[in-house]
Amino acid sequence: MDIQTIEKDYLQLMKKIESYNEAISLMFWDMRTGAPKKGLEQRSEVIGMLSSDVFKLTTSEEMLEYIIQLTQPEIYNQLNEITQKSIDETKKNYEKNSKIPQEEYKEYVILSSKSEAVWEEAKANDDFFMLQPYLEKLVSFNKKFIEYWGYDGNKYDTLLDMYEPGMTVDKLDEVFNQLKERIVPLVKQIQESNYNPDDSVLFFSFPKENQHNFSLDILKELEYDFSAGRLDETVHPFAIGINPGDVRVTTKYDEEDFRSAIFGTIHECGHALYEQNISSDLIGTGLASGTSMGIHESQSLFYENFVGRNYSFWKRHYNKLNEYATGAFQNVSLDDFYGAINVAKPSLIRIEADELTYALHIIIRYELEKALFNDELEVKDLPNAWNEKYEQYLNITPPNNAKGVLQDVHWSGGSFGYFPSYALGYMYAAQFFNTMKKDIPNFDQLLENGELKVIKQWLADHIHQYGKMKKPLEIVKDVTGEELNVQYLIDYLENKYRTIYKLV
Amino acid sequence: MDIQTIEKDYLQLMKKIESYNEAISLMFWDMRTGAPKKGLEQRSEVIGMLSSDVFKLTTSEEMLEYIIQLTQPEIYNQLNEITQKSIDETKKNYEKNSKIPQEEYKEYVILSSKSEAVWEEAKANDDFFMLQPYLEKLVSFNKKFIEYWGYDGNKYDTLLDMYEPGMTVDKLDEVFNQLKERIVPLVKQIQESNYNPDDSVLFFSFPKENQHNFSLDILKELEYDFSAGRLDETVHPFAIGINPGDVRVTTKYDEEDFRSAIFGTIHECGHALYEQNISSDLIGTGLASGTSMGIHESQSLFYENFVGRNYSFWKRHYNKLNEYATGAFQNVSLDDFYGAINVAKPSLIRIEADELTYALHIIIRYELEKALFNDELEVKDLPNAWNEKYEQYLNITPPNNAKGVLQDVHWSGGSFGYFPSYALGYMYAAQFFNTMKKDIPNFDQLLENGELKVIKQWLADHIHQYGKMKKPLEIVKDVTGEELNVQYLIDYLENKYRTIYKLV
Repeated sequence: MDIQTIEKDYLQLMKKIESYNEAISLMFWDMRTGAPKKGLEQRSEVIGMLSSDVFKLTTSEEMLEYIIQLTQPEIYNQLNEITQKSIDETKKNYEKNSKIPQEEYKEYVILSSKSEAVWEEAKANDDFFMLQPYLEKLVSFNKKFIEYWGYDGNKYDTLLDMYEPGMTVDKLDEVFNQLKERIVPLVKQIQESNYNPDDSVLFFSFPKENQHNFSLDILKELEYDFSAGRLDETVHPFAIGINPGDVRVTTKYDEEDFRSAIFGTIHECGHALYEQNISSDLIGTGLASGTSMGIHESQSLFYENFVGRNYSFWKRHYNKLNEYATGAFQNVSLDDFYGAINVAKPSLIRIEADELTYALHIIIRYELEKALFNDELEVKDLPNAWNEKYEQYLNITPPNNAKGVLQDVHWSGGSFGYFPSYALGYMYAAQFFNTMKKDIPNFDQLLENGELKVIKQWLADHIHQYGKMKKPLEIVKDVTGEELNVQYLIDYLENKYRTIYKLV
Repeated sequence: MDIQTIEKDYLQLMKKIESYNEAISLMFWDMRTGAPKKGLEQRSEVIGMLSSDVFKLTTSEEMLEYIIQLTQPEIYNQLNEITQKSIDETKKNYEKNSKIPQEEYKEYVILSSKSEAVWEEAKANDDFFMLQPYLEKLVSFNKKFIEYWGYDGNKYDTLLDMYEPGMTVDKLDEVFNQLKERIVPLVKQIQESNYNPDDSVLFFSFPKENQHNFSLDILKELEYDFSAGRLDETVHPFAIGINPGDVRVTTKYDEEDFRSAIFGTIHECGHALYEQNISSDLIGTGLASGTSMGIHESQSLFYENFVGRNYSFWKRHYNKLNEYATGAFQNVSLDDFYGAINVAKPSLIRIEADELTYALHIIIRYELEKALFNDELEVKDLPNAWNEKYEQYLNITPPNNAKGVLQDVHWSGGSFGYFPSYALGYMYAAQFFNTMKKDIPNFDQLLENGELKVIKQWLADHIHQYGKMKKPLEIVKDVTGEELNVQYLIDYLENKYRTIYKLV
């Protein structure tokens, strides 16, 4: 067969896989936004059936044959760039999926799904020992998988690479240490300072309907394209790219704390803008989605924090917020409001953490995971190690394991190596922001004028359009001209919080 | 292989096919209720991909092998009844799908999709000649298909059987002639009578939100199970069974004519109750949906007309309707309202026709289709033939083809043999209703008391639960103890309309 035919057949198979993935994504969205409960069990079966088709196709003999043929240098070099990147990605997935014996993988999937259920109960009962045997098995499965997948240097690198291709312990140790060195003392200084912005002004009864309408307004302002998306309500908010022309945002309305809807919507909008602006040339190639968890998170955090917690942004929207809040902010100055939405204080729960302390929560998890996979820590010692680190970095002690080591679902679902993406996203965002401000020096003015199109277009041109065509570290280099550099995040946080907390 | 293994493997393949169908159904619902428009083209590709998978699986060598093995009498007789019916249905589909050469079928699908687009334009421009060549090709394709599929007796029977298994021209001629004989003179009598119920009371501005809330109320009253469904807005209302635990209703709100939402919702609810009450044992076997278009329509028409246009039903709901209509019916008596929602007069457009004249619209289409497929009428002569029949049966003349032969999409989509199901549904409904009233003599009282659970349960027990386990004519026989008998519909219509129009 000639190259064109092989390439065409390969792309046809990819299109089939991506079609199944699109159907799965829609079913997932539907289950989380309003599918009737009596149909859910059967729906799960359908999702299982299609997922297993996807798995079979990605690990099929046919796929292996395409990989072998298309990666021969003399053929590979004749392919266009999209097919090249597609086959690279496919090869990586093939190796990841085919190296684990099928029976073992099946056992692992069943274990992690059981374990998530046990975690819920363990957390509710503050009972770490209930979960411990499950975590031990999950860790030992993942250690075996690392052996199957292979590693150079640190074993934990193999897990990191799953979520953030190219990321290593060496790099993370370097940036996280720099971050700790500067943020831990700053957090302490704030804790000891006498200035305390009053955030009690944020809590009042804010009708759901109004929060919804304000969310719609804000999405429009952020240049979210409603002809390629929609907003729905859910319990655990998410954004989902079903295809680049159909990227949906979900949010949650808490009538006693409007921040969850507003900042949640802005955060998910950041994810959604990424997916909406991926080049449609990539549809069906396996490349039409965000390139990594970290880069994805950089987009959501950019919007949530650099836009959504920016003073100029609220200069524009504060009056409207006050209207939707039926006048609740009548007697609160914009400055006080800005202070209130930017309160920084050490807290126990990651998902409630503020912009300043958030990365410390992540670093703690990273250090524990790294120790687990380098045989420097045993699962049974996790609770103590956890609490020690919270004391050391955040100066607070979890009163129990429910508010400590049991708070996140990730480990019980077998996701080790995922947490660092959250902090990476933050660092990427600050680094991108630094470059963006050189191109767009009137950034704050644009926020105040509601001209966010310029900002969205910059992100689309520099990051979004590429989908998985570029690896995360490649994007960082191409956009900012340098390697990952944590200094930008440190500078941003120091400037912002020293100003708010009136520190020298 | 032993029988158990073959049966298990066959059912596994059916489950796969039905899983794909479920995903397709959800995508279809989503496209019609709020999917963002920029994603639609790609979504259509995904639907196309999955539909072609379904087609391939139902016509595969593997499937043929199962059919051959499982239909051998000594094996077939050992299967349980569900597998027997499933394999019967599968065999029928296999024969239908595999007898047409694949290239020819593809050409036909492309032609009918083009032709639907041409129809829209032709209708807008009142230009039959624009559509004529397309219709000619579609008819000639269908004639060829009939040859492939085979026929005994009348060729048109083969088309009828696609939508209403077992139905024949002989049977339809008999019942339609009886119907015409009694309804045509009755319509004429009404046209000539001096009594004219005033339906102007129905037209006023009725806020969409209120129509929506009233629709929700009515669905609950009709025992629609919201934990196995939901109500959404759409342009062309439909109900869809995604699985028996997820059956969704859609409706349309016309603020100037609330009847479209209310009677539309009740109609779709009838379809939905059918799908919600199919036995869950049938999921994944190819039998978990309504047995035919006609029986499906009998359920929607039963609710729309026998329940929704019943005096006792409105005795219960009239006050609430008036509240939602913000008092618009304050000065309209229930009797006048009842007269207004039951006005019968000949009209040009099928989908706007009333309960009395509706069947005549269908009979006209049936007679024209039958003539086309028996070479007694050419496509080019359709407009004249159409107009003559409207004069003869309904005593009105279409002023143009847009309001005549071009009004329905069906023919341009290649659906010949479908129209009779609408009238069959009506006849079935009246016949079922006659039997139901023997079991439930206090039917009207139940409507007045809002005890519709008894009625729903009767339908579930006698009709719904079986899905495709019974053929339509088998259901009619089992439920009513006799063959299809049009006398029940005639009696119902005569009684109802003679009373309303005060005729002797």
